[in-house]
Amino acid sequence: MRILGIDPGSQRTGFGIIEMHAGGRLVYIHHGCLQLGRQPFLQRLGLIHQQLHEVLQDFRPQSAAIEAVFMARNADSALKLGQARGAALVTLLEAKIPVSEYSALQIKKAIVGVGRAEKVQVEQMVRRLLGLPDPVQSDAADALACAICHAHSSGTTDRWQERQIR
Amino acid sequence: MRILGIDPGSQRTGFGIIEMHAGGRLVYIHHGCLQLGRQPFLQRLGLIHQQLHEVLQDFRPQSAAIEAVFMARNADSALKLGQARGAALVTLLEAKIPVSEYSALQIKKAIVGVGRAEKVQVEQMVRRLLGLPDPVQSDAADALACAICHAHSSGTTDRWQERQIR
Repeated sequence: MRILGIDPGSQRTGFGIIEMHAGGRLVYIHHGCLQLGRQPFLQRLGLIHQQLHEVLQDFRPQSAAIEAVFMARNADSALKLGQARGAALVTLLEAKIPVSEYSALQIKKAIVGVGRAEKVQVEQMVRRLLGLPDPVQSDAADALACAICHAHSSGTTDRWQERQIR
Repeated sequence: MRILGIDPGSQRTGFGIIEMHAGGRLVYIHHGCLQLGRQPFLQRLGLIHQQLHEVLQDFRPQSAAIEAVFMARNADSALKLGQARGAALVTLLEAKIPVSEYSALQIKKAIVGVGRAEKVQVEQMVRRLLGLPDPVQSDAADALACAICHAHSSGTTDRWQERQIR
């Protein structure tokens, strides 16, 4: 199963693609950040849609995982994050890719083993789990972590199926 | 010129369509609310995309107007509003419809003549300007108000062109 993890943001949207093979073995495929630059805000939403659509065309993931956001720093950043997230989610829904949401706690537990892990620990463990020698940009690392969390949870498909969008 | 006004929200998304004819005469075409029901949140984003896409197919607006949101009540509602807004905006951008944003102040001034107008005054003036005998649901009235504001501003196209997305 090929999984896309995504970490949307209006300044940077990270993504990562992995495959889960027989026996739960994880294989790294690709990661990156959508190039949103310093465009006006509305244009950045369009770029998220276009570029994520290209990623879907190029890599054909069968499912997607995203971090659930329960709380944002403040109303202004929540509004920006929300719009970026809405743009990304609609692109996935449009491509009929089932989307699963995981809490930050679930993701950290799946990667590091503890829910209180630091960001840098997550990045290091993502690299170790996927055999990546070089540092990974933080948003792309979070996206890969989300994809790994989804892979680990795929045994519990039933629980997630209800939350998936077809 | 056929104009779509839209007032996105994760519970209700209102829309309104008008035409501006020669001499600035406004003609009412249609209004309504997308049916998002009590679906899980992700599904509602998908419904905004699908149903707005159908509205675009059915009514073929040449431009769209949306209220600019500068501030939300709190981070939680901002996150929900943002995602609904992102879903709607991506649908418009995807259809290559130029989107213009107007502040609440600009919209109220365009409709009622004063920026401090009450919601009910806006609805009444929208009905008067478009010759609608029956009450209009509040989100659809806001969407129509936004479309009217855009029609009134179309003399100042240059100013908006910079903010439009092609």
